[in-house]
Amino acid sequence: MLALVFDGDARMQDIPIPDRQPGEALIRVLSAGICNTDIEILRGYMEFNGIPGHEFVGIVEESDNKDLRGKRVVGEINCPCGRCRLCRLEMPHHCRERSVLGIHNRNGAFAEYLTLPDANLLVVPGSIPDDVAVFTEPTAAACRIPEQITISPEDRIIVLGDGKLGLLVAQVLWLHSKHLVCVGKHPEKAEILQKLRIATAHCGEPIEGGADIVVDATGSRDGLGCALQLVRPEGTVVLKTIVADTAALDLTVPVIDEVTILGSRCGPFRPALEALILGNVEVRPMITETFPLSEAPHALKRAADPDVLKVVLHM
Amino acid sequence: MLALVFDGDARMQDIPIPDRQPGEALIRVLSAGICNTDIEILRGYMEFNGIPGHEFVGIVEESDNKDLRGKRVVGEINCPCGRCRLCRLEMPHHCRERSVLGIHNRNGAFAEYLTLPDANLLVVPGSIPDDVAVFTEPTAAACRIPEQITISPEDRIIVLGDGKLGLLVAQVLWLHSKHLVCVGKHPEKAEILQKLRIATAHCGEPIEGGADIVVDATGSRDGLGCALQLVRPEGTVVLKTIVADTAALDLTVPVIDEVTILGSRCGPFRPALEALILGNVEVRPMITETFPLSEAPHALKRAADPDVLKVVLHM
Repeated sequence: MLALVFDGDARMQDIPIPDRQPGEALIRVLSAGICNTDIEILRGYMEFNGIPGHEFVGIVEESDNKDLRGKRVVGEINCPCGRCRLCRLEMPHHCRERSVLGIHNRNGAFAEYLTLPDANLLVVPGSIPDDVAVFTEPTAAACRIPEQITISPEDRIIVLGDGKLGLLVAQVLWLHSKHLVCVGKHPEKAEILQKLRIATAHCGEPIEGGADIVVDATGSRDGLGCALQLVRPEGTVVLKTIVADTAALDLTVPVIDEVTILGSRCGPFRPALEALILGNVEVRPMITETFPLSEAPHALKRAADPDVLKVVLHM
Repeated sequence: MLALVFDGDARMQDIPIPDRQPGEALIRVLSAGICNTDIEILRGYMEFNGIPGHEFVGIVEESDNKDLRGKRVVGEINCPCGRCRLCRLEMPHHCRERSVLGIHNRNGAFAEYLTLPDANLLVVPGSIPDDVAVFTEPTAAACRIPEQITISPEDRIIVLGDGKLGLLVAQVLWLHSKHLVCVGKHPEKAEILQKLRIATAHCGEPIEGGADIVVDATGSRDGLGCALQLVRPEGTVVLKTIVADTAALDLTVPVIDEVTILGSRCGPFRPALEALILGNVEVRPMITETFPLSEAPHALKRAADPDVLKVVLHM
């Protein structure tokens, strides 16, 4: 099969179709989305070697579960051991022995085929196009926030960052409170939210602070410092940003103001898919460009361009 | 009256007894404790000029409230405006217009007299000696933690730091879970906890990580980084440390592990005084030395010594 393989350098290779392990399904990939994490992986993040890619929709070609065979699916990317203390504490996505699709110890979705445990798969209704279903994983990451904190309709929310994740977070949280503004740098990205009647601001403008919840989805090392200036005492800053380098941080104010800083990563697939089915989250305007799998190295370079939102590979 | 006045330099002065404002009481100070914040103030923290000191017990000499006159009291140090959004949201201790006894815009307790609003005062039962009552404020700071987070008897807790606050935090949280260890540098401080059957460890020893809750009461810029290494995924780090300088911090792990970092400051006086009344918190072994008010400048120097725990002034 054709696959993008990264071993310090990313290039297309013809490699064998993977063998599925017991309890796993073999999935023929239809579409795969490129995420910032993929770009970071190509910069050395997680020291991952293999096939990157973790946002996908595909067809189950082989599985011991007849309810899955031939079905179009999306898949939860964390593959936990199921036996350790964290798995028993119902935190399988934090299992220290886990593999993660295209991120850690498991080949990913920038290929014609991948394998994942049956238990990770969710069947996608026929009404949802591939280019929408492929957004389930990043939408789930946005849906993680209301799973972690209670959001009331009165809460003032500021989302920092108008990248792929920022736009999804803004849309998902807007379902919980309309007192939301997304702050970014790119008028053309802001426009996607404006069409949905979601307020936006340019990061050069003065922003009214004192927000109950501020989400850092900037992907920048300065994001947290900025968020801490905008949150109210006893408010919450949700950290969605992963950056490789360390940030110098003055923690006096968060202690005096008793701010909660909450890390947030992967999220629940079911409510994410539901939001896509109901049209509560609009994703197609976020696709800047599509490429065939054979052009994946070029597509990855394109996805790293600051003006670009989602780049999707079609297999 | 005699008072320690700080204006870049700390020295004893003879100044007029303060006038109480409407709704305030005039209090004759009996004892005052020296806190790390006082030491930081003398280093320029909060740019405070005036009389420092915020841990005290005293006698109400004047008040419009007859239930307070002549009574021995302790006092909540935050004096909010009562009118702003944060006061209306029941977060008066975060009021932006507040004065804070001996810390911000209000003369403090290293003097023969001080004034505080009647509403801030709590009468101390006769059974409690001055040298115990003077610990109400720092004990309240420790009691703030169970007010902010739910602690179950099964939770594994690590308290980092065996200073004044660390020892109080360890004692207060130990009431909530016995799976607690306090990590410090000083065997003689650890002994105070050991006598109460609270586990201790030396910070050179390897500490078992994966704790549900880690409290940083180190007062050191490295405390948070250390706490983040010891907390489990989806666990909580409580930040009690205020340091003037910024810390370089790798936030990748707290995001991936979805850790909550929670700032924690002043706390509730009533449960603190109750813990002292019931003997649930043992404070007298923490008094290293007492000085008369006239020797306050020397007492402050002594309190900054790493081997010293609480220094108390007697008026």
